[in-house]
Amino acid sequence: MARRGEFETIAALFRPLTRGHRAALNLVDDVAVLTPKPGKDLIVTADQLVVGIHTLGDEPAATVAQKALRRNLSDLAAKGAAPLGYFLTIARPKSITDRWLEGFAKGLAADGEFYRLPLLGGDTTATTGPFSVSITAIGETPKGKMIPRSGAKQGDDIWVTGTIGDAAIGLDAIRAGKADAYLKRRYRIPDPRVAFGPLLRGIAHAAIDVSDGLLADLGHLCAASGVSASIDANAVPRSAQARKHGDLVRALTGGDDYEILFAAPKAAAAAIVQASRRANVAATCIGTIAKGKRGTVRVVGAEIPQKRAGFTHF
Amino acid sequence: MARRGEFETIAALFRPLTRGHRAALNLVDDVAVLTPKPGKDLIVTADQLVVGIHTLGDEPAATVAQKALRRNLSDLAAKGAAPLGYFLTIARPKSITDRWLEGFAKGLAADGEFYRLPLLGGDTTATTGPFSVSITAIGETPKGKMIPRSGAKQGDDIWVTGTIGDAAIGLDAIRAGKADAYLKRRYRIPDPRVAFGPLLRGIAHAAIDVSDGLLADLGHLCAASGVSASIDANAVPRSAQARKHGDLVRALTGGDDYEILFAAPKAAAAAIVQASRRANVAATCIGTIAKGKRGTVRVVGAEIPQKRAGFTHF
Repeated sequence: MARRGEFETIAALFRPLTRGHRAALNLVDDVAVLTPKPGKDLIVTADQLVVGIHTLGDEPAATVAQKALRRNLSDLAAKGAAPLGYFLTIARPKSITDRWLEGFAKGLAADGEFYRLPLLGGDTTATTGPFSVSITAIGETPKGKMIPRSGAKQGDDIWVTGTIGDAAIGLDAIRAGKADAYLKRRYRIPDPRVAFGPLLRGIAHAAIDVSDGLLADLGHLCAASGVSASIDANAVPRSAQARKHGDLVRALTGGDDYEILFAAPKAAAAAIVQASRRANVAATCIGTIAKGKRGTVRVVGAEIPQKRAGFTHF
Repeated sequence: MARRGEFETIAALFRPLTRGHRAALNLVDDVAVLTPKPGKDLIVTADQLVVGIHTLGDEPAATVAQKALRRNLSDLAAKGAAPLGYFLTIARPKSITDRWLEGFAKGLAADGEFYRLPLLGGDTTATTGPFSVSITAIGETPKGKMIPRSGAKQGDDIWVTGTIGDAAIGLDAIRAGKADAYLKRRYRIPDPRVAFGPLLRGIAHAAIDVSDGLLADLGHLCAASGVSASIDANAVPRSAQARKHGDLVRALTGGDDYEILFAAPKAAAAAIVQASRRANVAATCIGTIAKGKRGTVRVVGAEIPQKRAGFTHF
């Protein structure tokens, strides 16, 4: 069977992903039209995924799509934004079959259904490199209510959602042929805290999603806020699987967690516990914001080798 | 000298591109915050450029940056939108030096100055493939005033800006070692009709930017509008250089023109001529919208081989 061309691919695989949203103009116009609601800010983030860099390369197509999309949703959630839709550009090498691309679109369709999230526009092209996806996601908050990275104050408690270290330790376990279904999933498909993030508006002083590693991202938050932090390494929530397959240092520095790390005043503790129940995700207090040297993180209960403080794909 | 890391690269090369725009949050937050103006629609487009696919691969870094950005500005201009800012993701192979990346940022800085356009956010990553850029550009129109692809009506005149065929014929001439500075520039750096596009609001019934080739894009416009078109091939404006280095068929089908093709009622001719003067760009009437078979284009004065009707990179 002949390979689908660009326009056929858009019609067969991508047009259904718009979920009939008016702004997408049925993918006919090369642009989307957003009519912003009064009293809202639009929160926009752009992130990309390169197969073989951000994935191992042998993942099912659907999970590649979901990882690409969910990394963006995690950025929005950490800012307290509710997602509205996304733009997608893909670069496709010759080795990618129509069938693989169908799996990719199915992953996006499943997440579009789960998060009620329309594709609003994008672009497809060929490449001589690996398959890559770039997504720009748009969300909204009430005007002025975005949770910044820069608002942490001395005396704030430091909290984190979910469990930390599963993705990095999952990656190690996959490479060693020892990963169970839980760790595989935690590495492959982030579970962005889309329901929880917006509940932090008016509660958290500062927030960031954990993607470079807990310590590195806490460092970013502290640097932006002009403060330092002190955390109790043993308070950082880890799953039984992460404890079994990896150590504490790997959990604190590994990255790809896509949990929300946030600073909030002590008085907000009850509200945070209530939000955590409503969104059905754990929130754990792991430390305190201090004055100290801007951007530094003191870790009690673990020795962190200097060079493992953070991770970048660059 | 050690290669700049991700955060140094952002600080040294990309932060200045925000031009201090408030929405960019100084690139500190992984997101941008847009506070939409009342009475406006946001028009959003996403497009990517892969070195070696959309370029020959030996272009100066600055022109790669400018081509990537301007292709998006062309999409906005054709919809009557004034650009507000852009998001940038880049994937960088090991072979790309800091110096090349500085040239790339310089190209964006020059265009940022020329178009008064801030970088609002983005992402940088490594890749095992070629250097690639994905840009999401955001523009605005008064509410409901976006010029659609689908509004062309029987009896409308068909107009096009600038000259057609320079980019494709320029590419051929570069490959043959015969390109002059004009043709090189027309292939490498689009000149999107940013000033002219917004003047077409309330005048043009339908518009599209010419990127796949004049005939292909006119076909898209007719298909979206449920009409057909008839054009006089000899009325299509071609530069002296395009006439010298290439034939009419190549000009009509070659693509990468980034001119605006639009349909407007006959009564609008005087307003179009006035807009053309104000924006200092030629506008030429090349044909008429007819009833006929939806999406078909009749070309008078040239024989078009069926398979050369359009071009896609996929």
